[in-house]
Amino acid sequence: VPDVSVKSDSTGPPTRNRRRRDDELLGAAARVFADRGYSDASVQDVADELGILKGSLYHYIKTKEDLLFWLLEGVHNDVERIREEVAAIEGLDPLERIAEWVRRQVLYNMDNLDRISIYYHDMDRLSPGRLEILTQKRKADSRFIINLIREAQAQELADPALDARVLSNCLFATVIWIYRWYNPNGQISRAKIADTCAEYVTHGLIGKR
Amino acid sequence: VPDVSVKSDSTGPPTRNRRRRDDELLGAAARVFADRGYSDASVQDVADELGILKGSLYHYIKTKEDLLFWLLEGVHNDVERIREEVAAIEGLDPLERIAEWVRRQVLYNMDNLDRISIYYHDMDRLSPGRLEILTQKRKADSRFIINLIREAQAQELADPALDARVLSNCLFATVIWIYRWYNPNGQISRAKIADTCAEYVTHGLIGKR
Repeated sequence: VPDVSVKSDSTGPPTRNRRRRDDELLGAAARVFADRGYSDASVQDVADELGILKGSLYHYIKTKEDLLFWLLEGVHNDVERIREEVAAIEGLDPLERIAEWVRRQVLYNMDNLDRISIYYHDMDRLSPGRLEILTQKRKADSRFIINLIREAQAQELADPALDARVLSNCLFATVIWIYRWYNPNGQISRAKIADTCAEYVTHGLIGKR
Repeated sequence: VPDVSVKSDSTGPPTRNRRRRDDELLGAAARVFADRGYSDASVQDVADELGILKGSLYHYIKTKEDLLFWLLEGVHNDVERIREEVAAIEGLDPLERIAEWVRRQVLYNMDNLDRISIYYHDMDRLSPGRLEILTQKRKADSRFIINLIREAQAQELADPALDARVLSNCLFATVIWIYRWYNPNGQISRAKIADTCAEYVTHGLIGKR
């Protein structure tokens, strides 16, 4: 049985190899959890997907839950990066910033269907402490969007009569639900889907004016 | 162990009692599946929830899957009724009809959080034949909405540059995602949430004009 991902530690800069090894490991876990469902999948299944012995995999994890947590934490790291990038763009009004965030987040979700699906199906399988960590991270995203909606309403770019929290849930619905309906082999391009979602969200938020 | 739901067959009109018994049975199944997850829940758990013996429950079902299927089929019967009622209202333009459908469907979803959650988490556990029956029912709902969006675009009530299929997925996202964020003990009224979702959807569909 080849054991590349473990042995690769011994050559080259450790951080890069460690990152590559983590990517391989979590990529395999994502495929296995998405295919079989997290509850039914075993650490053995993930080891088989990686082509390593279960014993080797246990050098890196203590439990199956470790894989789930790192996978979902990885999603949040990506989501945080998108948020920071969009927050840093200069010269956008709040609605333009929301539209840009929606476009990028929709593209990300289309590229990570397995992980987003696992996120919303199996998050509750985490221990309370770990679930709380993800919940706090999700709240940061939620605050970012609610603040932008409130700014748009304050600047009279959007109807201030609508509740910003309810609207933010409508917005997240549009962005997240992608994982349930997007077909990578479908006829509509990724860019067109991202633009259409951004249009829908923006005008939904604007409302009556 | 009381066995009321079984014995009640012997008095009164059979159809009404059968319906009440089915409601009790599926209500118990919904609570158990939502609490424990369908995979982890057993027929014994449902029998315990009903306060009957497992053997008595097996008079009505062959497998746990029967309960899941009838539960989800029941959701579709309700959804079909809502669709037919909204289709029958006179004097609405396509956007007004969509808004009315969104309001009613959002209220329904708020009243049936367990069932909607089970629908989207455990539907795939059904055998292929039964899954196909639900998929066909879901397509009828999808066609209803896509046709209304296309009518609105043809009447220039909505921007015809946006793809009606992508928009319909955005719309369903808004309506379905309710089950993930609605808090029955929250401060915002059901009616206000339904109205806000209808406003968001309608203006999202209208887009640039």
